Amino acid sequence: MPLQDYMQLVSTDDHLIEHPALWADRLPRRFLDAGPRIIEHEFTPGKTPAQVWLYEGRIYRYIGLNAVAGKRPEEYGAEPIRYSDMLPGCYDVAARVRDMDIEGVQAQLNFPSFPRFAGTVFLEADDKELALLCVRAWNDYVLEEWCAAAPDRFIPLVLVPLWDVHEAVAEVERTAALGARAISFVENPVPLGLPSFHTDYWDPFFSACEEHEMVLCVHFGSSGYSPRTAPEAPMAVMISLFGCNSMYATADLLFSPVFHRHPKLKFALSEGGIGWVPYMLERIDTTWEKHRYYQNIDQTVRPSDLFREHIFGCFIEDQHGIDNRHQVGIDNITWEGDYPHSDSNWPNSRKLLAEALLDVPDDEAHKMVELNARRLFRFPRTEAGV
Amino acid sequence: MPLQDYMQLVSTDDHLIEHPALWADRLPRRFLDAGPRIIEHEFTPGKTPAQVWLYEGRIYRYIGLNAVAGKRPEEYGAEPIRYSDMLPGCYDVAARVRDMDIEGVQAQLNFPSFPRFAGTVFLEADDKELALLCVRAWNDYVLEEWCAAAPDRFIPLVLVPLWDVHEAVAEVERTAALGARAISFVENPVPLGLPSFHTDYWDPFFSACEEHEMVLCVHFGSSGYSPRTAPEAPMAVMISLFGCNSMYATADLLFSPVFHRHPKLKFALSEGGIGWVPYMLERIDTTWEKHRYYQNIDQTVRPSDLFREHIFGCFIEDQHGIDNRHQVGIDNITWEGDYPHSDSNWPNSRKLLAEALLDVPDDEAHKMVELNARRLFRFPRTEAGV
Repeated sequence: MPLQDYMQLVSTDDHLIEHPALWADRLPRRFLDAGPRIIEHEFTPGKTPAQVWLYEGRIYRYIGLNAVAGKRPEEYGAEPIRYSDMLPGCYDVAARVRDMDIEGVQAQLNFPSFPRFAGTVFLEADDKELALLCVRAWNDYVLEEWCAAAPDRFIPLVLVPLWDVHEAVAEVERTAALGARAISFVENPVPLGLPSFHTDYWDPFFSACEEHEMVLCVHFGSSGYSPRTAPEAPMAVMISLFGCNSMYATADLLFSPVFHRHPKLKFALSEGGIGWVPYMLERIDTTWEKHRYYQNIDQTVRPSDLFREHIFGCFIEDQHGIDNRHQVGIDNITWEGDYPHSDSNWPNSRKLLAEALLDVPDDEAHKMVELNARRLFRFPRTEAGV
Repeated sequence: MPLQDYMQLVSTDDHLIEHPALWADRLPRRFLDAGPRIIEHEFTPGKTPAQVWLYEGRIYRYIGLNAVAGKRPEEYGAEPIRYSDMLPGCYDVAARVRDMDIEGVQAQLNFPSFPRFAGTVFLEADDKELALLCVRAWNDYVLEEWCAAAPDRFIPLVLVPLWDVHEAVAEVERTAALGARAISFVENPVPLGLPSFHTDYWDPFFSACEEHEMVLCVHFGSSGYSPRTAPEAPMAVMISLFGCNSMYATADLLFSPVFHRHPKLKFALSEGGIGWVPYMLERIDTTWEKHRYYQNIDQTVRPSDLFREHIFGCFIEDQHGIDNRHQVGIDNITWEGDYPHSDSNWPNSRKLLAEALLDVPDDEAHKMVELNARRLFRFPRTEAGV
């Protein structure tokens, strides 16, 4: 048996779609007009209008690709959509739990949708007082409504205000006290106009994450940088290449002072895949061996050793990564379902995963699909979960 | 024996450094002032001046890292240098052959240095009449001096004028008649301000390359795009990530019309490594399966099948790629020495390669180090070479 019944799937990358009243329920009255709310918007005259977020006068749409769970690839598309075009499990937590039961997923970790993976919509906002309240509202929603509805089914992941490192520290402390386990951070701050991992700017924030054992989840694309090759290139090029963002983050972090200054810090590369890790660690080590002498790089610790201690990858479909799991690091791998995005195999995730793990010994499969994630995110099985 | 004596190493990525009189020997007298010539230039007052190229009033320097053959990593550096700081094999063909003999390399394919990998220095030139003469001069030098000095030791690679597709066709035809086997092209034209692989702009050029069986060698970095993560990031980050440029080129080409329109065209990914290929082909195929229906993509041919027919990777040190050679494609792999750049292991290339191939059967090793390159570049053994 490749995937034993006693193994519970703990997914480390999924997505919730914010319900229309999320911010209206939580923002002070004076911010209700400028704060995020859903409006009808006609993109094409004569066609059914889409539902979009209006925030400080700017429009943010959901595209169909980001809510395709349950659709066949022949039905995929990138057009703006309405809530009624989605499975209720996208935005309704009770329906989500039913969808998880359907495919045999025990727990998920959910990223935001409209705010973008790391809440960068609030980074670009004009009114930072409102933006901070929006970040807190999303976190409160996730902690008090979404995760609280089924605490053994959801790993609480929260946002921080990226524009103010001291406010970020405060939000780490506030949400840690409420049970948060992870922060959706950025794979690279530089494309967002923020200081890089090679500065000391983030040190107070990283120290707070160490102290409260908060994992930094960096989803590919969270930097705002997309691997686009040409204006006319089909979107498939970018979709294929998004793992390169995680490669960039890996090399950037391993050659930075971050892990030397923060020996307890953990990064999870969300949706980045794992099949590239053996190649990239070999290349990074070779580069370190040849090029460290004349550069401002740690001279003693091999980068691949840093990786084993600090960085975790996850996979959906990645047979090459599974087959080379020992070169990746059997303790550094988690599984993800990516519900309801287009990389997801819902409702067949468990079935396809079982086929992919056919040649993997039970103890190794168990680590990859459940135990590593439970350890990393301090999310043990509960009575109800056993 | 991992690497049998009868196997000749044919390297598919090395570099020659242009000798100071290359253009002065060949340009018409009226262009001698504006054309490339070597001058003394004092970067730091009081220090030994460097030797730099002056071309149309602009200064182009050689950095130490690009001529490190024979140096220990402890001696590497990125400062500008003089010819006397280099091994003569960098710029003198007789010395080069001796250096190849020292490490047991039978043949090389050499990229330009000052003009950049694909001659993009001439693309940015003001006077395109002069620039075209400069391209032709480099090609004539390579064909008439460098390769002619030892025809069984050098695969002739030439440049084309990238700014004019019809002049590029003419240069393909001219140099093919003189024995050229390959063209140093760009991994992606877009960052250079040129039309992408998804347009029909390059069709006449690609057709000429098919007709004359010219391989398009696309060196990582030839697009001018560098994988930089942060202003403060050490250069090691970029060096580690350059293979991502070859991943970008692979996805870009496989989802473009290029190979569907040009069924005989071959691309070689120079210095891009091979260890990432299994992961990337799996990811590209999965993307094709899920996302082709709503995109302008060929609906019938699996991208990994296109790769096997059209794209070749090469490796220096890449144990993961060697171990997974069948997933890469045993017929799609060549070896490279990278003399005299910092990825090179000269004079220990053959020794280290033998160690890396220890577990590889003879017939497969022979393909990877010699036979694939000879077939791809139509460069058979000669009497002298046997």
